[in-house]
Amino acid sequence: MTHATQPHLIGADTIRVVVWGENRHEQLEPEVAEIYPQGMHTTIKEGIEENLKDHASVTTVTLDDPEHGLTEELLGNTDVLVWWGHAAHEEVTDHVVERVHQHVLSGMGLVVLHSGHWSKIFRKLMGTSCTLRWRSENDRELIWTVNPTHPIAQGVPHPMIVEAQEMYGEHFDIPTPDELIFISSFSGGEVFRSGCTFRRGHGKIFYFSPGDQEYPVYHHSDIRRVIANGVQWARSDLPTRAAPTLLRYETGEFFNGHDYDGPLKTSGQ
Amino acid sequence: MTHATQPHLIGADTIRVVVWGENRHEQLEPEVAEIYPQGMHTTIKEGIEENLKDHASVTTVTLDDPEHGLTEELLGNTDVLVWWGHAAHEEVTDHVVERVHQHVLSGMGLVVLHSGHWSKIFRKLMGTSCTLRWRSENDRELIWTVNPTHPIAQGVPHPMIVEAQEMYGEHFDIPTPDELIFISSFSGGEVFRSGCTFRRGHGKIFYFSPGDQEYPVYHHSDIRRVIANGVQWARSDLPTRAAPTLLRYETGEFFNGHDYDGPLKTSGQ
Amino acid sequence: MTHATQPHLIGADTIRVVVWGENRHEQLEPEVAEIYPQGMHTTIKEGIEENLKDHASVTTVTLDDPEHGLTEELLGNTDVLVWWGHAAHEEVTDHVVERVHQHVLSGMGLVVLHSGHWSKIFRKLMGTSCTLRWRSENDRELIWTVNPTHPIAQGVPHPMIVEAQEMYGEHFDIPTPDELIFISSFSGGEVFRSGCTFRRGHGKIFYFSPGDQEYPVYHHSDIRRVIANGVQWARSDLPTRAAPTLLRYETGEFFNGHDYDGPLKTSGQ
Amino acid sequence: MTHATQPHLIGADTIRVVVWGENRHEQLEPEVAEIYPQGMHTTIKEGIEENLKDHASVTTVTLDDPEHGLTEELLGNTDVLVWWGHAAHEEVTDHVVERVHQHVLSGMGLVVLHSGHWSKIFRKLMGTSCTLRWRSENDRELIWTVNPTHPIAQGVPHPMIVEAQEMYGEHFDIPTPDELIFISSFSGGEVFRSGCTFRRGHGKIFYFSPGDQEYPVYHHSDIRRVIANGVQWARSDLPTRAAPTLLRYETGEFFNGHDYDGPLKTSGQ
Repeated sequence: MTHATQPHLIGADTIRVVVWGENRHEQLEPEVAEIYPQGMHTTIKEGIEENLKDHASVTTVTLDDPEHGLTEELLGNTDVLVWWGHAAHEEVTDHVVERVHQHVLSGMGLVVLHSGHWSKIFRKLMGTSCTLRWRSENDRELIWTVNPTHPIAQGVPHPMIVEAQEMYGEHFDIPTPDELIFISSFSGGEVFRSGCTFRRGHGKIFYFSPGDQEYPVYHHSDIRRVIANGVQWARSDLPTRAAPTLLRYETGEFFNGHDYDGPLKTSGQ
Repeated sequence: MTHATQPHLIGADTIRVVVWGENRHEQLEPEVAEIYPQGMHTTIKEGIEENLKDHASVTTVTLDDPEHGLTEELLGNTDVLVWWGHAAHEEVTDHVVERVHQHVLSGMGLVVLHSGHWSKIFRKLMGTSCTLRWRSENDRELIWTVNPTHPIAQGVPHPMIVEAQEMYGEHFDIPTPDELIFISSFSGGEVFRSGCTFRRGHGKIFYFSPGDQEYPVYHHSDIRRVIANGVQWARSDLPTRAAPTLLRYETGEFFNGHDYDGPLKTSGQ
Repeated sequence: MTHATQPHLIGADTIRVVVWGENRHEQLEPEVAEIYPQGMHTTIKEGIEENLKDHASVTTVTLDDPEHGLTEELLGNTDVLVWWGHAAHEEVTDHVVERVHQHVLSGMGLVVLHSGHWSKIFRKLMGTSCTLRWRSENDRELIWTVNPTHPIAQGVPHPMIVEAQEMYGEHFDIPTPDELIFISSFSGGEVFRSGCTFRRGHGKIFYFSPGDQEYPVYHHSDIRRVIANGVQWARSDLPTRAAPTLLRYETGEFFNGHDYDGPLKTSGQ
Repeated sequence: MTHATQPHLIGADTIRVVVWGENRHEQLEPEVAEIYPQGMHTTIKEGIEENLKDHASVTTVTLDDPEHGLTEELLGNTDVLVWWGHAAHEEVTDHVVERVHQHVLSGMGLVVLHSGHWSKIFRKLMGTSCTLRWRSENDRELIWTVNPTHPIAQGVPHPMIVEAQEMYGEHFDIPTPDELIFISSFSGGEVFRSGCTFRRGHGKIFYFSPGDQEYPVYHHSDIRRVIANGVQWARSDLPTRAAPTLLRYETGEFFNGHDYDGPLKTSGQ
């Protein structure tokens, strides 16, 4: 079992990152275990640490931890959650998904990787089917930057080259991203909007498609750099973790709202 | 009870519109019934007919109809659904919301009015809390066009003036709209992104905030024109109603995908 | 010399289209003349007519016409201008570019094709360098739809396949498009945002990259359909051709502004 | 005359900021000189220093300096240029505007304030008329945040309140901003997209409308904070100052492009 306890003393500037790993393929498929012997979440964690060094404190939790490791306490102490899931999306309980959703809307950053496009939490945040076309046949992926001034695009070549990868292709059924940063091509000819940002409530979300259990993509230094950039970008600048609210404000009163007390008669909304 | 049966023979160019009305305030609050004696849905329907004439065939259904009037058959024969709800959002069953969601992602247009911002279907499509600030104190609302070439903005003055209205103010917790068409100010000083479009799956969504049960806003000719414009815009151009899909495509095969048959081993995704 | 005179009686719904062709390659390079014996502008014109039939009235003008054919009178009677230029961008006089710019800001639609990305008018409207990477080596281009509900994307396969084409690749230095409709891949691995819309002033602009003098791209039925769709989309819905204005409005006066009479003292701006 | 010389030794993290001031109203209008005795540019400079402290090194130049102070050498040593102009937009020479434009496209940040909306440089970057409606009659301005997670929106109340201000109202003829951060209302009822970002080439641009020569807006602590936030945001993360390029890339060669050598025959573009 992986360890979810957050260190107690971290510098104010340290980003508290939790990598959530489904950790099933690694248990069930020897060829995956060979590429990621400590689990994919550990490799993703190491990639973030390699880039952010002591600017980040990174831990991991997995699906089989109690409450999938995603307790209220853990999320309350997490600046950015990184999500990798695939085979077991449906095993993540709705209750935990609701909890993560609330934390994202309240300001927790979220980095969703690869097959996480079909996770419950990503679909809930997007409102769409998040479907796409795919093929796992060793395509070469080229990842092109279309937003060169974005902080997530810094420090990597144009294009990034991943020699062997699963293909993800359009149409990818997501809302138009707030920012489109990367577009990938595959040797088979498909294209994919592979790096996208979304703001939802008080939370910032980065979706990045490269990475798969069957290919050593999370060992690739450029991919690791982009994920680390995404973590830095997704961390909230807001002073407190709080959900958006529905409040009544009297005329001329701009800062102190009342709680909502029902739609009929009394409230008049 | 309102009637959901669609006419059988409609010209190919006729937009089949269904106005969904919650129809509770009209039953419970005499002052609302006075403004909207046939129900708000009827007034909204008449506004669309006034503008689109025989280019639209408009019917209404309400919350208290069986399945809230939103049967699979009705939705399958609806080009654009217009939604007004407020006091009873929670009474709309999740099952029906899921059905409407699937139809939107499959290409049914959706026009969400005013307090529909907090309906289950709108929140499910947005992925956010859809909260805002509000006050019902006879504010004057001015509705300014910021996207003058958009079809939804045609045929109305700049600004539109609504003499008495409920105030809706920022921050409105929605995803950044694909297109921001109108921004409102209120005499109290608040502002609101009052006309927004969103594309989700194969469906087009227009949110328009003016309108309330306590004010005769749906009798206002400019507001009626904008809703009718929104209906026209939201109607799909796609030839068939179909949801986006997740399919595997072999190398070199661009048009015929396979169904997904599971994430482990066999599928390799 | 091509003919710029607009027909006198056209139905109210007829879109008045002018295709502007540089018409140099066709004169200087026999291999281009072979593909486009009547000039590229004529082939583009025929593609629009093939799709819009009597909904459009299409004429052509070229660089070597007096004032490049783009007189005030012609532009005043043009709903949508289609632009193809390449070798002679610098020969288009600034005076004419300024005139076209004013008409676009006042509501004339503009469809810019392929190498028109580097035309003076497109650069002036974008504000950026409009540079890109390129190679003319018979790449196969696949054009993928990422905005399936957009009217410009209707009626064509996903993807469109162009067997031999010049490669245009990212980074394409344009402002983030208002709407990204198509992304292309090339057999060499590059990607390109090949179908983009922009709204500027009262004008709507569609940029579409497929098409080149060395390949028979404007004979391709899908490409012709997209250009025709773009023409329909770019036609203004506004009732009059008028530029945006800077006006002073007194307090409480929303509809009648005063002309600006200078920044110092008197005007107080 | 103000001083353009940049200090020679500045920490790597120090943002080199230049405030460009037109400095005409202050010379010609005693009531402006009373509010801004050292010139508006000096007050703007002090507001940035107050917030960024030793993270920024701020200097000023003005219209009447040789080359308006905007020499190639100065711009080459400027991370972010802040622009305030009004009465004398037309006196800024095209040559200098072209130079500033090149630096923005090459990565220099640009913060455009208030009446700078009609400066040559802003219009050149936007491609539109940048017109608006206005009135200088002591309106109260409320500045509402619609993008609460954006770094530029941090550290200020929602709304910000400016007791007396010039009104700027819609329609503001700009391209749809990449990010809309603030919307203002005025006591007269108008609204304005008052805080907007744009990416152009390798440069980041922030437009912020509050501020005027007739009101002490640049002494307002919240306004000063937003300008400082904008300066931080606009500073490029790119390692070098370089313009986007048009280059030919051979098949399979992704990183080394050739210069363009003309459109006819030899180049084949």
